[in-house]
Amino acid sequence: MAKQTVAVLGPGSWGTALAQVLNDNRHDVRLWGNIPEQIDEINNQHTNTRYFKDVVLSSDIKAYTDLKAALDGVDAVLFVVPTKVTRLVAKQVAEVLDHKVTVMHASKGLEPGTHERLSTILEEEIPEDLRSEIVVVSGPSHAEETIVRDITLITAASKDTEAAKYAQKLFSNNYFRLYTNTDVIGVETAGALKNIIAVGAGALHGLGYGDNAKAAIITRGLAEITRLGVKLGADPLTYSGLSGVGDLIVTGTSVHSRNLRAGDALGRGEKLEDVEKNMGMVIEGISTTKVAYELAQDLDVYMPITTAIYRGIYEGADIRESILSMMTNELRAENEWR
Amino acid sequence: MAKQTVAVLGPGSWGTALAQVLNDNRHDVRLWGNIPEQIDEINNQHTNTRYFKDVVLSSDIKAYTDLKAALDGVDAVLFVVPTKVTRLVAKQVAEVLDHKVTVMHASKGLEPGTHERLSTILEEEIPEDLRSEIVVVSGPSHAEETIVRDITLITAASKDTEAAKYAQKLFSNNYFRLYTNTDVIGVETAGALKNIIAVGAGALHGLGYGDNAKAAIITRGLAEITRLGVKLGADPLTYSGLSGVGDLIVTGTSVHSRNLRAGDALGRGEKLEDVEKNMGMVIEGISTTKVAYELAQDLDVYMPITTAIYRGIYEGADIRESILSMMTNELRAENEWR
Repeated sequence: MAKQTVAVLGPGSWGTALAQVLNDNRHDVRLWGNIPEQIDEINNQHTNTRYFKDVVLSSDIKAYTDLKAALDGVDAVLFVVPTKVTRLVAKQVAEVLDHKVTVMHASKGLEPGTHERLSTILEEEIPEDLRSEIVVVSGPSHAEETIVRDITLITAASKDTEAAKYAQKLFSNNYFRLYTNTDVIGVETAGALKNIIAVGAGALHGLGYGDNAKAAIITRGLAEITRLGVKLGADPLTYSGLSGVGDLIVTGTSVHSRNLRAGDALGRGEKLEDVEKNMGMVIEGISTTKVAYELAQDLDVYMPITTAIYRGIYEGADIRESILSMMTNELRAENEWR
Repeated sequence: MAKQTVAVLGPGSWGTALAQVLNDNRHDVRLWGNIPEQIDEINNQHTNTRYFKDVVLSSDIKAYTDLKAALDGVDAVLFVVPTKVTRLVAKQVAEVLDHKVTVMHASKGLEPGTHERLSTILEEEIPEDLRSEIVVVSGPSHAEETIVRDITLITAASKDTEAAKYAQKLFSNNYFRLYTNTDVIGVETAGALKNIIAVGAGALHGLGYGDNAKAAIITRGLAEITRLGVKLGADPLTYSGLSGVGDLIVTGTSVHSRNLRAGDALGRGEKLEDVEKNMGMVIEGISTTKVAYELAQDLDVYMPITTAIYRGIYEGADIRESILSMMTNELRAENEWR
């Protein structure tokens, strides 16, 4: 593939790791962010020590605070900003963009209040003549591993197969590999909702339970987020793929997962405010739990694990009792969700 | 449910743990085995120290070496013997059984040579007038955790829903919970084939790769065992359930998993003979890899991970190169297996 120029919006851990992948593939990479000290650090020290203490980035990666300059003449734009500011940044992009680009995002969440998927927000805020069909890049990917070029396999999903293939070629190399998918709803909802289950798996661990219980909550959690996804229009089999099961495994069992660590702290009895303060990072699973709980109520989907976590976090219920209540529900068939 | 009398055939770690679950549920439990010293130990010391150093069993659990005595008047028989002796023990049961019982099994494997599922073997060897439809009990379950009454959720699958519900009621309590399923082919093949992926995940770990790579091999491994299962008649969604994803998570990520540990040793460069000698336990994933490789050849199913592990174990190929070759395959769509 010919050299592309790509703007990566959001110099967090994942945005920085993806920028390095693109740079390794010899594309021109521009990292945009709104914290001047961080942008200066990337340009002058070639480090992003807030996220990676020991990593030196290529001096070819240029960072910008000026969005118009960052987008000037680019072939593609990758959004990797927190869910809650996706709409705001998309509006800013629409204001300054002056040509058509491939629009991708690699964030995981659902917008609080509207319950919208991030690709829907991008579709709404960026006029059609300025963008491709949205490509969603999602899968099991701790930035801490990708930044040291450990093997990572993820999904590129788009309604337009050619747009997905463009992202596949753009990012794939000998340590980073993308599989295409056409089920945007499935990939996005799986990526967002799986964080709830990671919080639940963490909480079980914090409560002192073992690997059987963790596998059980992950699997039954998968069943209930699949139930919700299918109601929203997803293919249930997408949830068995990299953006579903794959991401659940890495989020629900890895030491790097902040959703897991947040759940663990909740399980050990810490208060939500303290957990969020101590982590100092966005914990998408906490806000996604609220969105999913509201969606489950609206759409009448049975989600006992999400409900238990919601009650533990937002209504002060005893999280042990909430989670263990699923052990005493009526005995069920495994596939009752279908 | 009224008190049942159940013979558990095979006093290994899982057989012993399941016997304790049944005893906790106030059923009469008989553990049958063919090592006199072990049977004496269970009857006299109420321990099974080969598997559980610190566990004292209820004195209500009686152990037998005499199969006819163990089966006398029982309501149900649970096979928990190694795959390779399932047929032999089934023949012995058929010889001495003199009344109709519910037949269940909780083993995971495929018969070498014939490639048959264990329920098919039981159907073949035990005459229809002596048995129910077979019930398969399978899911994420380290015996080390169930024996200390940690939470465990698994599946009971049978062509006959009533037989599955019987097993569900027989075993379920406040720490052990069964979900019924009608897809026997799916549950059995998932339980057997997932061990291959656990060996592969272990090998990646032994080679020094991280959590992203592990999640990737587990997810892509799930895709390929699902491909094979569907060819054999399974419902693909069964692979997302407790016997598939659930068991993969616990087998592919837990310190208790012997398949994972065997893969790890292979990844670190140990020879197969040494790995098996050092573990001193049956490693089903090693023999299942051979069966699955042969089935994939016979049925023309694309299984790159299984093939890589097979070549590493049985043909002396470099396991690093074998496994990493999947990174340089043609770029694919995620759902090409469908």
